[in-house]
Amino acid sequence: MIKRLMEQIDKTKAPICVGLDPMLSYIPEHVTRKAFDEFGETLAGAAEAIWQFNKEIIDCTWDLIPSVKPQIAMYEQFGIEGLKAYQKTVDYCREKGLVVIGDAKRGDIGSTSAAYAAGHLGKVKVGKHSYAAFDTDFLTVNPYLGTDGVKPFVDACKENDKGIFVLVKTSNPSSGEFQDRLIDGRPLYELVAEKVVEWGQEVMEGDYSNVGAVVGATYPEMSRILRKLMPHTYFLVPGYGAQGGTAEDLKYCFNEDGFGAVVNSSRGIIAAYKKDAYAKFGPEHFGDASRQAVIDMAEDIRRVL
Amino acid sequence: MIKRLMEQIDKTKAPICVGLDPMLSYIPEHVTRKAFDEFGETLAGAAEAIWQFNKEIIDCTWDLIPSVKPQIAMYEQFGIEGLKAYQKTVDYCREKGLVVIGDAKRGDIGSTSAAYAAGHLGKVKVGKHSYAAFDTDFLTVNPYLGTDGVKPFVDACKENDKGIFVLVKTSNPSSGEFQDRLIDGRPLYELVAEKVVEWGQEVMEGDYSNVGAVVGATYPEMSRILRKLMPHTYFLVPGYGAQGGTAEDLKYCFNEDGFGAVVNSSRGIIAAYKKDAYAKFGPEHFGDASRQAVIDMAEDIRRVL
Repeated sequence: MIKRLMEQIDKTKAPICVGLDPMLSYIPEHVTRKAFDEFGETLAGAAEAIWQFNKEIIDCTWDLIPSVKPQIAMYEQFGIEGLKAYQKTVDYCREKGLVVIGDAKRGDIGSTSAAYAAGHLGKVKVGKHSYAAFDTDFLTVNPYLGTDGVKPFVDACKENDKGIFVLVKTSNPSSGEFQDRLIDGRPLYELVAEKVVEWGQEVMEGDYSNVGAVVGATYPEMSRILRKLMPHTYFLVPGYGAQGGTAEDLKYCFNEDGFGAVVNSSRGIIAAYKKDAYAKFGPEHFGDASRQAVIDMAEDIRRVL
Repeated sequence: MIKRLMEQIDKTKAPICVGLDPMLSYIPEHVTRKAFDEFGETLAGAAEAIWQFNKEIIDCTWDLIPSVKPQIAMYEQFGIEGLKAYQKTVDYCREKGLVVIGDAKRGDIGSTSAAYAAGHLGKVKVGKHSYAAFDTDFLTVNPYLGTDGVKPFVDACKENDKGIFVLVKTSNPSSGEFQDRLIDGRPLYELVAEKVVEWGQEVMEGDYSNVGAVVGATYPEMSRILRKLMPHTYFLVPGYGAQGGTAEDLKYCFNEDGFGAVVNSSRGIIAAYKKDAYAKFGPEHFGDASRQAVIDMAEDIRRVL
């Protein structure tokens, strides 16, 4: 799967990922109004608004981008109806040929992680049949429980040609609280990074592994070290744009081959029409604003590579 | 909410929690057959089998126990249909007056954790209305992202009288890989424990906080230290029974007041009919086997208190 992501990055010349993390407050009023008119101010109404919002953004950007990253929490908060919108979004993106990174940060003890892996990256057996529930291409995974909590995801990658991105150094302000603490003189995230490399060795595809790492754009000095420590690991890089990471901060996430990282932007793309720079599009043309924001983001990143 | 859990523990004299983590392989054939006859060997069929299985176990045990802990992964693997069974299970248990601990191990950056918290412990706003999606009483939370990833869950506890259990020391074999690593001479899980205490200070209810900790039964020498380090923190203790933890291992999880811990057993209770000790009940009476297993487990734990 990492090979397919790289091919799509190569084709689009855009190592980016659009974060489909819709908040209701991002969605233009004409979209929510239509959904509420049909389904009422209900969970189903919210889910419909989210789906129509996503669809417009996907339709306006899919030819420019290799991948999307729907954040499942933004759907899960609306319960079953929200998760139906997640599934529809995942399926629609895959139909468009996009690589879909499910941002779920799952992780548990072995048998439980195996269930998550089956549900998001594999198939679940029911009698003599098998079904893919949430059929994403990649999933983000939390490493706090150690190898036996991550291994079932790696196995699912191997069996189904899928990939994962394991949290190594996250982009949020308090990520250092535990992740940066020194163990034998080295931060915890480096130890996690070493494990990620180890886990990834059995699912290599060419120069890169199907086990990638989440490395926040907001800590460039750490990405530089991590890049060296894990030369064959793809980075999923959140934190660009709204969270404060700049293109300059990103360059250390890439290898000299120009590969090695896929940079996510959520709010900066999907709510672009709310920013001064794209206000001219107006809420009616929010999809075109997102398209322009994608073009500008890709350009911004190419500038530093 | 911790007060209500304690009241129910006091009433039942059973500091236990039944883990509703159904695998299809646990479910007696007459239950799956009936579900498949109605819905086919489909995700809906699997979900129906799970729901009927859960319902029987709840009906046979609810008067003996204070709480249940459905593991959402076991439902999520069956997609939307599975999650409907999760929701039905949660709602049914709450109708029975049980305290429901959603075992989801969620955790993300602040705004995303806020969405998870709204979806599992609070309400989500849609226009002028608010809805509870998966309305559990407690949720398990992963601390890897630090304070800003946990804070939204604590806020939800405060606003909605709910609780959380934060992963401190998990029960799985490789939990030590990161959790036991020494930082300034002390294991990471102790540092997490200190933060749990800190997060819990603003949501105290009597002697205990609504921010609890997950502390595995499989590492008794560590629970002893953690118990001292966090005297006002309730422990959710997995690992008893099938994972190898014994009643003897549990005693350090409790305070001298006899409170302080709720011990989970999943397979040992819900698949009791498959064990030699309860084989006499037969698959037809799997619920009665579970009831007997609950009685025995409560007795086993009372013995060491």
